[in-house]
Parts: sequence; structure tokens; C-alpha cells
Amino acid sequence: MIDDTASTVGHSREESFERGMEALTAIDGAGGQKVIDSLADISPELGHQVVAWAFGEIYVRPGLAPRDRQLVTLGMLTALGGCEPQLEVHINAALNVGLTTDEIVEALLHSAVYCGMPKALNATFIAKKVFGERGLLTAQAA
Amino acid sequence: MIDDTASTVGHSREESFERGMEALTAIDGAGGQKVIDSLADISPELGHQVVAWAFGEIYVRPGLAPRDRQLVTLGMLTALGGCEPQLEVHINAALNVGLTTDEIVEALLHSAVYCGMPKALNATFIAKKVFGERGLLTAQAA
Amino acid sequence: MIDDTASTVGHSREESFERGMEALTAIDGAGGQKVIDSLADISPELGHQVVAWAFGEIYVRPGLAPRDRQLVTLGMLTALGGCEPQLEVHINAALNVGLTTDEIVEALLHSAVYCGMPKALNATFIAKKVFGERGLLTAQAA
Amino acid sequence: MIDDTASTVGHSREESFERGMEALTAIDGAGGQKVIDSLADISPELGHQVVAWAFGEIYVRPGLAPRDRQLVTLGMLTALGGCEPQLEVHINAALNVGLTTDEIVEALLHSAVYCGMPKALNATFIAKKVFGERGLLTAQAA
Amino acid sequence: MIDDTASTVGHSREESFERGMEALTAIDGAGGQKVIDSLADISPELGHQVVAWAFGEIYVRPGLAPRDRQLVTLGMLTALGGCEPQLEVHINAALNVGLTTDEIVEALLHSAVYCGMPKALNATFIAKKVFGERGLLTAQAA
Amino acid sequence: MIDDTASTVGHSREESFERGMEALTAIDGAGGQKVIDSLADISPELGHQVVAWAFGEIYVRPGLAPRDRQLVTLGMLTALGGCEPQLEVHINAALNVGLTTDEIVEALLHSAVYCGMPKALNATFIAKKVFGERGLLTAQAA
Repeated sequence: MIDDTASTVGHSREESFERGMEALTAIDGAGGQKVIDSLADISPELGHQVVAWAFGEIYVRPGLAPRDRQLVTLGMLTALGGCEPQLEVHINAALNVGLTTDEIVEALLHSAVYCGMPKALNATFIAKKVFGERGLLTAQAA
Repeated sequence: MIDDTASTVGHSREESFERGMEALTAIDGAGGQKVIDSLADISPELGHQVVAWAFGEIYVRPGLAPRDRQLVTLGMLTALGGCEPQLEVHINAALNVGLTTDEIVEALLHSAVYCGMPKALNATFIAKKVFGERGLLTAQAA
Repeated sequence: MIDDTASTVGHSREESFERGMEALTAIDGAGGQKVIDSLADISPELGHQVVAWAFGEIYVRPGLAPRDRQLVTLGMLTALGGCEPQLEVHINAALNVGLTTDEIVEALLHSAVYCGMPKALNATFIAKKVFGERGLLTAQAA
Repeated sequence: MIDDTASTVGHSREESFERGMEALTAIDGAGGQKVIDSLADISPELGHQVVAWAFGEIYVRPGLAPRDRQLVTLGMLTALGGCEPQLEVHINAALNVGLTTDEIVEALLHSAVYCGMPKALNATFIAKKVFGERGLLTAQAA
Repeated sequence: MIDDTASTVGHSREESFERGMEALTAIDGAGGQKVIDSLADISPELGHQVVAWAFGEIYVRPGLAPRDRQLVTLGMLTALGGCEPQLEVHINAALNVGLTTDEIVEALLHSAVYCGMPKALNATFIAKKVFGERGLLTAQAA
Repeated sequence: MIDDTASTVGHSREESFERGMEALTAIDGAGGQKVIDSLADISPELGHQVVAWAFGEIYVRPGLAPRDRQLVTLGMLTALGGCEPQLEVHINAALNVGLTTDEIVEALLHSAVYCGMPKALNATFIAKKVFGERGLLTAQAA
């Protein structure tokens, strides 16, 4: 279904890591790096796999735009529940790849239909925290 | 955050239902109507709320494009698990609002990162069923 | 908080099983016994624990009325997802202990607020199946 | 199944909100209002939908007693996991609509059968917090 | 399937509690006792059931080695999500019954395949906390 | 924490696939291959990632014995819910890597403590199906 001509070119563990780190930095910014750093003394391999596999193998694929990946991701993290740290990273990521604050808030409102009010509320309060930290909350006062 | 000038115009239960039915038909097609019909003899009020609230109040809001709503929805339904009937409706819906088969397959591949392989597999097999029924599976053989 | 004077009287594994079987039969009827029977050749101990612990130790406690236990149970099974076989047993149980069809349908409508539409729908269709089998679906046609 | 004669009378977005706010205040007390207030600068529409839809459309329906709705709700929130803020609101709500502390504790004990010990424990510790704040924990010392 | 000759010998509520407390102390150490103590003023019966049933009836069964039970338990708690307090108890328990820090870290890496990265990360950070408290984190610096 | 000397040797996408296919075949047998085959016309990349990443990168790591990985996996799949197809594959896998039928049944009994009875029952009935297909159910009749 998907043309894998480009991605089937072989690449080593190290190349995947480098590709992944580039993608991670572009998408998650400092938040992603912080997660990897905090894994260094407990599970460097998990840190490696987040970078080399999740970002270096999956995120870099051209089949879905970065903003679209974050929309899917926001939906998943809201539905899973108990993933507030990851929601914080990915609401930042969503902003980094071009989703607007209004689109994010609307996506979380939309989640109430499928996940129910509690999970929609939990996710929305993480958005409030992230927007506040980025100075994006005050603008809409009026 | 969101300008609700348009949507704060009062509308009655009946108006919400009519608005919702229009949206439901445009997005879910026959699949949505079938769900509502099958609720008629057990919980017509649930059918009403799916139409009048989910579609008539939330889906119709202009803050998020229909295709973006389906990306979020695919993420949520994959993550929740056990929602195969709804995934079937919404993979159809995703196609109806303009997502390509490749984008849908890629979104479900992406879900493996956040939900794990089992849920990604379950969702992908629903996509296979839907694409098959719509004659969209044979094209990518080569 | 709870006066356990009565229940702290010691009782053996066998006594718990007998007490539990009585409660199971009264509440779940044939559905419960069928589950226990189907465990006989794979995990008789799981069957024993369902009877002796779940029913013999927890269900028999006087602190919550049988119908109230089923309301909590319907909420939990709807929220967990993927528990359709148990929902079928417990919608039957709910009817057995005095909840009306309308109360059950309303409880599942209520679940849409907290669990979202997909899980509310899945549970409601199990209610439709159970009510149909018990001849409780035709009455409300008008 | 459900006689909707009363509720099918059309009502506008504003009327639903007013009806909902009345129900929210009666059931959740200050806790509910606090949630709505904290949404004002991030997603006023989500706040509106909690009030106007969840409370104004669903909670106000006469088909299930307020205490019964809270029993179902406690079951759902315990099962979902990760919904501690909502459990806190709804254990308060359960007390407000007439459930006793013993019934709430027993419902959460009952949840161990269906959700397992970890979720039963998490919910019970929220009950301990709420009962403590309302001075309902000291009475049962003896 | 399982030979229950040994365990079908009747035992009373008190005997189960004593057996369970012995097992709980051996496996969970101080962490388990702390949970039971904190239940004393809210739900002593839940504390009793954790001890008498979970440990006194299930854990003591000879069919699965204590370290194997903790491997299954780590998998479940990681997958459930929102069970960080229990993960903390059971990562301690896993160490107590002989799993090495490397095996625990590897089990949580393995969980990424089935539960996705967010839950694997959440569990791994609990392991970091527990290992740190037990002075097991510094050793692997080199 | 983990000595990655061996696994940090770079390996290409193709090498990971070959390593993974070997592991997949050894562990899952025909069941694993069947899943990969059924992905060929919908998401060959998901099939590739299951093989090359899950098996070729994670399963092959020496830090956790194959039987231990299946114990963790059985715990996760039971807890997730709605993963019956994967449970079927992995109960077969558990037998393939040396877990006995009694250990598997006991692990699923143990899961009742953490996941509740419904999920323990669902998983146990999958074990019954698998054991039956492999002629492992009749032996324990007496």
C-alpha cells in the first residue's frame, strides 16, 4: 500500500539514531531530549529505541504530515489515560509542528465524544499548563 | 480561546438533531444511520444524543477540519481497544472526508509507537476489512 | 468504617464456596453457573475463586444492596471495554435483582458522559441482545 | 423503551446550560463549579458541554435516581483509571445525593472483583481524602 | 489442570489472613504493610482482602514461582496505566524475590512492544525512583 | 545498566528483519508468520516493524529469558483487554518457549488480583482454546 522505496534502503542502528534525534529535536524540542536524558542512568536502551525506532523509523516516514501525526497522537494519549507527562510533551510538539492552540483545544473537545468527559478534561488541563508556560493563554482573554 | 459567536446562537433539541443528521450523513454515510436505526428499539435517546450532541453540537464546529477530526478519532479508537465496530464506521468516515488509504494505514502504523503492536494490529485489520469492502485493497498489489 | 462483626466469623474454603454458589445462583442465574462449568477443564481454581471469593466473600456482604452492586458493575464493565461476555451475564443479573429495563438503558446512556459514545454503544447493544432473549424488547414498540 | 415525552420538548443551548448548572450545583456542589471555572481561559466550550450536555441533557433525565447515577459513575471512574480528580468530585457528589460513606466504601471494595486490587485501592484512597476533608473519617475510629 | 490437593484443605478467614500476611511480608516488605495500614481507617475490609485473598489464597499457591508472579505483575501494572503506587510496591517486590535490576529494566523495555512507549516510560521512571531509593542506580554508571 | 556491547553493533534494516524473522519463528511459530502474511496487502511496513523491531531489536536481547518475556507479555495482554488474537498467539508462544500449561493457567489466575475477574476469565478461555487445539486439555480430566 505504501511505497517504501525510500525507507527500505538499509540503515544501521547508529544511522537510525541520528535520523531519529534530528526528528525528535525538530518535533519535541527540549522536552524530548529531556526524556532521553532522564533515561540515561536507568534504561539507555529505552531512550535509544524512542529515538532510533519511534522517531528514526516511524516519524520520519513521509506518508503522514507531522501535524497529522500529532493529531493522531493527541487522540491516543487522551484515550489511554494516565499519560499526562507524554501529553505535555506532545501538546508542545503539536504547537511546534504548526497546529494552532484553537485546533488543539478543539481536538480535545472532540475527544469527549469518544473518550468521555474525564479524559477530555484531564487532557485539556495539560493544554492549559503548556499554553500558560508558552504565554499562549493570556491572548484570548477578551 | 475559541470564538463561539456563531455557535452560541440558541438552537433547540430538534434543530441540533437536524444539524447532526446532516453532518452524520455527510461523514459516516450509511454506517452512521445503521447505528442509529439499530438503537431505535433499545435506546432511542442514545441514538438521539449521538446525532444531536456528538454530530449536531461537536462535529459541526468549524474549529477543526473534518479530516483532522477523523485523525484524532482513529487515534482514540485504536487506543481505547475493543471498539472495532466504531473503528469500522470511522475508517469509512476517514475515507469519506478525504483521508487517503495510505494516510490511514500510516496513522495506524504510527499508533504502534503509542499504543503498542496489538492495538495497532487490531486497527489495521479493520482497515483491511473496510478497504476490501470498498475495493481499495487490490490496487496496491504491485 | 464498616462493622465486620458478622463477617469476621471464620469460615472455611468450603463454606465460602457454598455461600458463594448460593449468591451466584440467586444473582446470575444460569449464566453464572455456565461460566463456572466452562472453567472446569482449564482452571477449576479460577471457577472456585469466582464463586468462593467474589460471591462468597464480597457479594454476600450486607453493606450494599444487590441492585446497587449491579449498577456499579454495569458501570465498571462498560468502562473496561472488551468485557462483552461479562456484560451479558450482568445485564441478566441486573434484571434478576430488580433493576428495570429502563434503569439499565438509562445507566448505559449515562455512561456516555464518562466513557464516551463507543463504549456506551457497545454496552447498549449487549442490553439489546439480553432484553431480546428475555422477551423484554417487544413491549416498548409503541 | 424510555418515555421521552417530557424531554423531547425543544430547549435551546441557553436553556440546557441553565438546567445543567442547576443540576451540577445540586449534585457536585462547589467541586463542579470549580472545574467549569478553571476551563474558562482554555476551553469554555468544554465547560459549556459539561454543564449543558452532561448535566442539562443527561443528568436531569428522570429515568435513574441521582444516587444510582453516582453508583454507576463511581464504577466507571474506578475502572477507567487515571481519573482521580473526577473521582474526588464524584465521591463528594455521591455523598451529596445521599449515598452513605459505608455504601461508597463497599462499592469500591466491590470494584476489586471487576477491576482488580490496584484500581480499587486508588479509588479507596481518594475516598479517604474526601471523607477526611468532610470530617467523616474520624467517627469510625472505635 | 492444577492439582489442588494441598490447597483444598479448608482454612478459615483468620488462617487465610495469617498465611497472607506472611506472604505479603516476604514479598512486598514494608511497602505492603504500609498499604494495609493506610486502609485501616477507611476500608479495613479491603486491607483484609488484599492480605487474606490476594496473598493468602493466590500468592501462596505453589504453581508459579514468586519471581514469575512479579514478572506477570509488572506486565499488568505497566499495561493498566495509572497504577504508579502499585508499580512502586511491585518493583520493590520484584527485587525482593530475586529479579535483578537488569531483568526488571529489560521487562519494562519489552513492554514498549505491547503497551507502547508512554506506558513503558512511565513504568521505567518508577523503576528509576525505586532503584535510586535502594542505592541500585549508581552502580551502573560506567 | 544494561551492557549493550553486543547489540550496539550496527545492523541494517534488512539484518534486523532477518534476525527478527528467526526469533519470530522460534517463538511464535506458524502463528506469527500468519500475522505477518495477513498484513502484506494492507500494511507491509507494520509487518516489517513487528518482525524487524519487536523481534529483531527487542526480543533478541539477552537480558531476559524467552519464557520470562512471555510471562510479562501474558500479563500485559490480559490487562490491556480486547487483545484476544494476540493472546492466542502468545499462549502458543508461551508453550513454545517452555512454560507449562499449569504455569500459564496459574499466571492467568494471578491476573485476577490485578486486572479483576472479567479479564482473567477472558484470557483463561483463550488458553482453553489454545490448549484444546494442541491436545493439552484432555490430559487433566481425572
